[in-house]
Amino acid sequence: MPLTKSWVTSANAADHPFPLNNLPYGVFSTAGTDPRCGVAIGDMILDLQAAEATGVIDLGGAPMFEMPFWNEVMEEGPAVWSALRNRLVALLQEDAPEQTVVEPCLVHMTDAELHMPVMVSEYTDFYAGRHHATNVGTMFRGAENALPPNWLHIPIGYNGRASSVVVSGTDVRRPWGQLKGPNDDAPRWAPCARFDIELEIGALVGVPSDGPITVQEADDNIFGYVLLNDWSARDIQAWEYQPLGPFQAKATATTISPWIVTKAALEPFRCDTPAREVDLLDHLKDCGPMLYDIDLSVTLCPEGGEEATIARTNYREMYYSAAQQLAHHTTSGCPMNAGDLLGSGTISGPNRDERGSLLELSWGGKEPLTLPSGETRSFIEDGDRLTLKGAARGDGYTIGFGDCTGTVIAALDDPYAR
Amino acid sequence: MPLTKSWVTSANAADHPFPLNNLPYGVFSTAGTDPRCGVAIGDMILDLQAAEATGVIDLGGAPMFEMPFWNEVMEEGPAVWSALRNRLVALLQEDAPEQTVVEPCLVHMTDAELHMPVMVSEYTDFYAGRHHATNVGTMFRGAENALPPNWLHIPIGYNGRASSVVVSGTDVRRPWGQLKGPNDDAPRWAPCARFDIELEIGALVGVPSDGPITVQEADDNIFGYVLLNDWSARDIQAWEYQPLGPFQAKATATTISPWIVTKAALEPFRCDTPAREVDLLDHLKDCGPMLYDIDLSVTLCPEGGEEATIARTNYREMYYSAAQQLAHHTTSGCPMNAGDLLGSGTISGPNRDERGSLLELSWGGKEPLTLPSGETRSFIEDGDRLTLKGAARGDGYTIGFGDCTGTVIAALDDPYAR
Repeated sequence: MPLTKSWVTSANAADHPFPLNNLPYGVFSTAGTDPRCGVAIGDMILDLQAAEATGVIDLGGAPMFEMPFWNEVMEEGPAVWSALRNRLVALLQEDAPEQTVVEPCLVHMTDAELHMPVMVSEYTDFYAGRHHATNVGTMFRGAENALPPNWLHIPIGYNGRASSVVVSGTDVRRPWGQLKGPNDDAPRWAPCARFDIELEIGALVGVPSDGPITVQEADDNIFGYVLLNDWSARDIQAWEYQPLGPFQAKATATTISPWIVTKAALEPFRCDTPAREVDLLDHLKDCGPMLYDIDLSVTLCPEGGEEATIARTNYREMYYSAAQQLAHHTTSGCPMNAGDLLGSGTISGPNRDERGSLLELSWGGKEPLTLPSGETRSFIEDGDRLTLKGAARGDGYTIGFGDCTGTVIAALDDPYAR
Repeated sequence: MPLTKSWVTSANAADHPFPLNNLPYGVFSTAGTDPRCGVAIGDMILDLQAAEATGVIDLGGAPMFEMPFWNEVMEEGPAVWSALRNRLVALLQEDAPEQTVVEPCLVHMTDAELHMPVMVSEYTDFYAGRHHATNVGTMFRGAENALPPNWLHIPIGYNGRASSVVVSGTDVRRPWGQLKGPNDDAPRWAPCARFDIELEIGALVGVPSDGPITVQEADDNIFGYVLLNDWSARDIQAWEYQPLGPFQAKATATTISPWIVTKAALEPFRCDTPAREVDLLDHLKDCGPMLYDIDLSVTLCPEGGEEATIARTNYREMYYSAAQQLAHHTTSGCPMNAGDLLGSGTISGPNRDERGSLLELSWGGKEPLTLPSGETRSFIEDGDRLTLKGAARGDGYTIGFGDCTGTVIAALDDPYAR
């Protein structure tokens, strides 16, 4: 599929993240206005509340854009998703007769502040990238026991904390926690010293379900995707995670990119999961290409310093697709709701510079990274800005996600010393 | 504190669960009406929407009972909680001048259906009963390694699934899952064969927080308590839980009792946590008695059979209080919201008949229980009704919770064979 041209001419550049082929959904405000739903087109945002008010968008009578979140549209399901997308393409494409009505509903991106695009119902994080699981397992259990016995049979996941999900641009305060090193006699209360990122893609559930669903149904129920950074306190995690999994190590913040890239926009980029060393049980088997070819990268910018790319990888490195993860999530009968967010798990490629966490990039701190300034990094330092970037590259166009960024600020003085 | 008498005379019996000293909060409907908030008093429910409409309840102007959930009141905080309770006591106590206005707002419990009293924001389950953790650890790792190294230092918890929390009386369908026994070559897809209960108390967060809070602040932020049964698929859990904790094993259902017993009602029953073998770090230390003396029991009733009590214990057996759990939950900066539900963890006493799960009662299936009919049970059979009961016993009165019950119904035919 080639570029579809828009009368918003900035959208027609081959490397612009928001061409008419993309149309990602977000929530924005401008000075003195309340947050509302919008769609990115080139350097502009189409204000959907305003467009709906003019009558050029009408999805069946009832207003769809009264809430400053996408949950209502997400819950409507594929027929409404298609109708909205088709209408937006018609309104924004070159020579659209409605241009004069729509144009006053555009807002410059530079005038807009972006907010959470979705009210996250619940948040689940997976551990479904094979290179990541192998790297972490090798560090902790040795190369021979790197993958847990269940890993090739189920997408391992755990429930995270929806209340800690924040939108790109939100500062992240270094947490305190209970820490105990392998040579310490007793745990102590201290700021996290091994604060890390996890490069992930988040899938957003649209259509609710209430019982086991197939992989195909799961794929059908997914509304779209965001970049996701699951900030991780590795030292808190090491002490707390046995036997019931990560808890406070993962509850400080999870940052998502501000634009929901729809499944429709990503359709041309579908690709297969890797060959299976061990057959999956029938209910988890692939039933078509359900990963996407999305280039991903991570940059680190020290305070006042220069931004450097520290990792590059691709979403096709995942072992399990989001559809497989969602299907597995429902096997026990677990109800799923619009706004449920599923983190892919850290995405690492096979090579050293393709690793999606500092834990892996610095090999547990033993092989610090060297930045362009000559500074080194094992884990995140205060003032560092970490940014995830993602783009699928089509024929003369790019499907971008918008940066997923956060600056780590110094820990509080002891929050209990008062 | 003795019994406070009510003009609703059924509330004055010493063994009635809902005297004026209790006043637990729920949501109910009657035939043909929508769910709304109510308070239990003796055999009756006071319809708070109706009472508010008469003007006898006025918590500052804006109507408080328009939503069929208690979240709004919970979020208001201790001053409103006290004002409401004081007003309800004044309206319902013996010789209240408002009796003639209030009486038409009463509904017979037998005419009412009970619903979820709260919209659960997020659900966290802990593992904070020492006898339970010791029993389970002994079965899985041997007596010498029963407690994980971190257990005496932090209340171990993991995030559960809010969407699976249901109100007492809801049938629970036996789940399917991926299972692999220790002698199996490969996992298989099959109905859970080791379905279990967990006897717990759930604490409901009222006041939101956004950063680390002290144990005292945590106690102040808790609105009330419910009985909680965290249904658990032990065979699914055994295969999936390493390395990131339980996931689908705990996502079929969690049942809560229908009435929120407020902190105010439980105030006379406060008691201390057990003596500490190892000092807690300062921020987790007890700052007063924050457990409660609540008698708990579990009954099992086979389909068409006789209800038998299979365990009796007490909430004071917990090692960590809900306040300590909530404080720990915030240490990383995790935001907490009104409606967050914290399961205590399974409550077991030191003796065999005081164990809060079938896993412990049947010692992993090796020592099946014998029921009065002569039938035996290692785990739950289809048609079994499991009920948790709880009561704090005061001077001439009882603070009851209302039963927390659920019947396990047969698994679906293979949900993927279609």
